[in-house]
Amino acid sequence: MTDTKVEESLFQIIHCYHQYAAREGDVETLSLEELKALLVDNVPRFMGSLGRKEPHYITELFQAADRNKDNQICFEEFLYILGKLVQDYHLQYRRQLCAHHCTQHSLY
Amino acid sequence: MTDTKVEESLFQIIHCYHQYAAREGDVETLSLEELKALLVDNVPRFMGSLGRKEPHYITELFQAADRNKDNQICFEEFLYILGKLVQDYHLQYRRQLCAHHCTQHSLY
Repeated sequence: MTDTKVEESLFQIIHCYHQYAAREGDVETLSLEELKALLVDNVPRFMGSLGRKEPHYITELFQAADRNKDNQICFEEFLYILGKLVQDYHLQYRRQLCAHHCTQHSLY
Repeated sequence: MTDTKVEESLFQIIHCYHQYAAREGDVETLSLEELKALLVDNVPRFMGSLGRKEPHYITELFQAADRNKDNQICFEEFLYILGKLVQDYHLQYRRQLCAHHCTQHSLY
């Protein structure tokens, strides 16, 4: 059975998590440095928003996700960050649709 | 700026949500029928697990996601379902890795 596009997308995100988790220390979890690299390399649109490249932003995001305070983000904790990403890209998706609509109807 | 694979994956999931939301009624939210069609068409691996094709499973999933009880799943509520999907595909990803490892090392 071939995977659907949505299934490929889910696996892509999961694969990305594990690629960065495997870099150093515990190969199943993200350290602060691994999370930072994952975000900078893979979600530049998210990181492009004002203030997100500031070190304290990533540190605060990491701390908010790290529910058991073991200074590592496990996969279940990463779902919190994924939720933030999906919400951010949803806004971008809507803005793009709106811009496309405005261009088509010469509203600007 | 070209989108990364992870960004394409996020947009793919968002696009899928809106495709099904637009089918009938409120074009921004999923009805029970729209959610069912989205799951059956796009995540057959998830739906293939025992009991998930039973009507009561999807109804219970819908009700658990529908926090404000308006009988529709808005995008924020859909994040609950997306979390379930990501966790399920994460298990499948690990099983595949394990099977691959076992085959390579002739463990079966």
